[in-house]
Amino acid sequence: MKRSGIVTLTTDFGTQDPFVGIVKGVMLREAPELQLIDLSHAIPAQDVALAGLFLARSYGWFSSGTVHLCVVDPGVGSAREPLVAEADGHLFVAPDNGVLTQVLVNARAPTVRRIDLARLGLDPPSRTFHARDVFAPVAAWLATGLRPFSGLGPLHAPMMNAEDPPLRDTTELRGRVMFVDHFGNLVTNLPAEWLPPGEVRVFIGDSSLRVVGTYAEARPGECVGLVSSFDTLEVALRDGSAASRLAVTRGAAVRVARVAEGA
Amino acid sequence: MKRSGIVTLTTDFGTQDPFVGIVKGVMLREAPELQLIDLSHAIPAQDVALAGLFLARSYGWFSSGTVHLCVVDPGVGSAREPLVAEADGHLFVAPDNGVLTQVLVNARAPTVRRIDLARLGLDPPSRTFHARDVFAPVAAWLATGLRPFSGLGPLHAPMMNAEDPPLRDTTELRGRVMFVDHFGNLVTNLPAEWLPPGEVRVFIGDSSLRVVGTYAEARPGECVGLVSSFDTLEVALRDGSAASRLAVTRGAAVRVARVAEGA
Amino acid sequence: MKRSGIVTLTTDFGTQDPFVGIVKGVMLREAPELQLIDLSHAIPAQDVALAGLFLARSYGWFSSGTVHLCVVDPGVGSAREPLVAEADGHLFVAPDNGVLTQVLVNARAPTVRRIDLARLGLDPPSRTFHARDVFAPVAAWLATGLRPFSGLGPLHAPMMNAEDPPLRDTTELRGRVMFVDHFGNLVTNLPAEWLPPGEVRVFIGDSSLRVVGTYAEARPGECVGLVSSFDTLEVALRDGSAASRLAVTRGAAVRVARVAEGA
Repeated sequence: MKRSGIVTLTTDFGTQDPFVGIVKGVMLREAPELQLIDLSHAIPAQDVALAGLFLARSYGWFSSGTVHLCVVDPGVGSAREPLVAEADGHLFVAPDNGVLTQVLVNARAPTVRRIDLARLGLDPPSRTFHARDVFAPVAAWLATGLRPFSGLGPLHAPMMNAEDPPLRDTTELRGRVMFVDHFGNLVTNLPAEWLPPGEVRVFIGDSSLRVVGTYAEARPGECVGLVSSFDTLEVALRDGSAASRLAVTRGAAVRVARVAEGA
Repeated sequence: MKRSGIVTLTTDFGTQDPFVGIVKGVMLREAPELQLIDLSHAIPAQDVALAGLFLARSYGWFSSGTVHLCVVDPGVGSAREPLVAEADGHLFVAPDNGVLTQVLVNARAPTVRRIDLARLGLDPPSRTFHARDVFAPVAAWLATGLRPFSGLGPLHAPMMNAEDPPLRDTTELRGRVMFVDHFGNLVTNLPAEWLPPGEVRVFIGDSSLRVVGTYAEARPGECVGLVSSFDTLEVALRDGSAASRLAVTRGAAVRVARVAEGA
Repeated sequence: MKRSGIVTLTTDFGTQDPFVGIVKGVMLREAPELQLIDLSHAIPAQDVALAGLFLARSYGWFSSGTVHLCVVDPGVGSAREPLVAEADGHLFVAPDNGVLTQVLVNARAPTVRRIDLARLGLDPPSRTFHARDVFAPVAAWLATGLRPFSGLGPLHAPMMNAEDPPLRDTTELRGRVMFVDHFGNLVTNLPAEWLPPGEVRVFIGDSSLRVVGTYAEARPGECVGLVSSFDTLEVALRDGSAASRLAVTRGAAVRVARVAEGA
């Protein structure tokens, strides 16, 4: 696989402390020419599911041969293994805590390896900062091809999180709010391509909403359904926060049905 | 025009979600060597005026031939056109919603073109994420010169926002607070070069303040006027937030007069 | 000294305003190929001590020949001098306000010079934005070697802040909380290598805590001591904020003693 020279970073470190900068410093020590791109450092502490979602929905927009470093790691220092994975022409470096579940279930023939610290001559890592001591140098080596993927350690069966997949039958779609974005939009896990032709209603909290094509079609103050930037159904309020208006948060149930049913 | 290989980004996307990273991924897919520099992603949602201000006051500090991508876009998915502009040796990519007003009114002989999506072979864009689907690839092409500016679409008369310019007569200056910075400093739209020689007072809220040369000249607890980093008059509190102390926010009226009048 | 081509940035500017972007634009005007890495822009306004701490604990993770730009500068525009320093194979650009104290006291044979503005042909700087007008171009010249370190100005005895060093005697260690990180962990100034062998207790606020090897060894809801990412003692709460739980903030006293004493 040709390398893009890009490494993306997804962590729960925040940007107040110098930890993200230190991780980047270690990567550049190994490979000074890397392009380092932040996906998010505002994952809520230890929210493995949200980190996995962001990663799964984002990686495909990067050049193939990009390395995606994801460190949301409640088990740091415990027995969980550090992993590398190859999936859909992209490379992933992450702890074995289920964070790669959504990447791996949707990829064709992914390969996962355990990082073999001893074999790689990595210093015994500090007990709290594996991102700096293990994941950063491995990501840099992968991004430049300095070490081949197959040489990083043996094949490994990764931990996979239980999924709560969206459901679809002949009369309706049932899903949930995956996350609330910066604008207060409610991004659901219902694929846009599942939306049936014709008029439908979105049922969420106590509300029944119509589906529109763009934010601009919503009336002032109206919450509507539309296709999100993640190509799933989203509930949005024009010029405001749908989350506040509807008093709905992450995890809330969402149902979509044809107008005939809702009438 | 020689290209600098730099693209700046100004959005209201925040940095919590992966959207800024995705936009960068798309740009690097087109042009892997770009320098991508964040100006701000903390523009309040859909605050076109503030985005335009930040852009107008910042672009001149970059190398000529830099591309400035600005996406604050309440009308995304509606009929508003995507634009490219050339002004003062810099290039701009933005929606046609007035965000470039302050750049264009102050530039010598700017040129504005509508981005012709069909002609460029851009996929029909998603309904909510034009930054990713239109603005990012166009910015990357411009930044590398892969496509010439003149080939992006026909000339276009852009939407221009009504300006509320500062006023100046023989006895006083009248302006307003353009924005409150991170420190709580009140940055006004009164050009520093308008400040008359000799002693003046700044009138804002219920207060009358003196003008000093540096923060360090203010007495502890004193609000003062001084020249801002944007080369306009600013009202600052040493070791604190002038906005909180004076209970003044963006848009507040500011008046400057010679001491004779205020005495 | 060979240059790495990297410049790190540590400021109290925040990332809401375009000021960090402008500083980067000025650096890239001088040296388009630089790698610009943010350490933190969330230093509390004018908190010179915290900026110095972050810098001292971070710089060693970067390639030697890296330039570290640090602008937390209550005295901007006053008589304080702009400095450059060479220490441990790294270069530093900062105001002479004590921010480099911790870097300099721990380095072997550091060299500090005053930046001679007139000699360098720098325009007389604006009164409020020395980061843009002085520190940015100097950092770029240093990072590329465009100007030698010795040519930037005469040797200078920098301001050094009074330190409040941790203490160690035969029965206990005494230190303080240096900062509270993004997770609410309390990072102290007690070096990890001072921790005596055998069982010890950490006394902080009204609590007496055990020391563990990793976050995962703590029981749910238990505050513990462990080695921080800065290789000092840290107090952490598994799955929560130790700062909130213990009602302890920066500066709080911390004591470590063998179990015999605590029993």
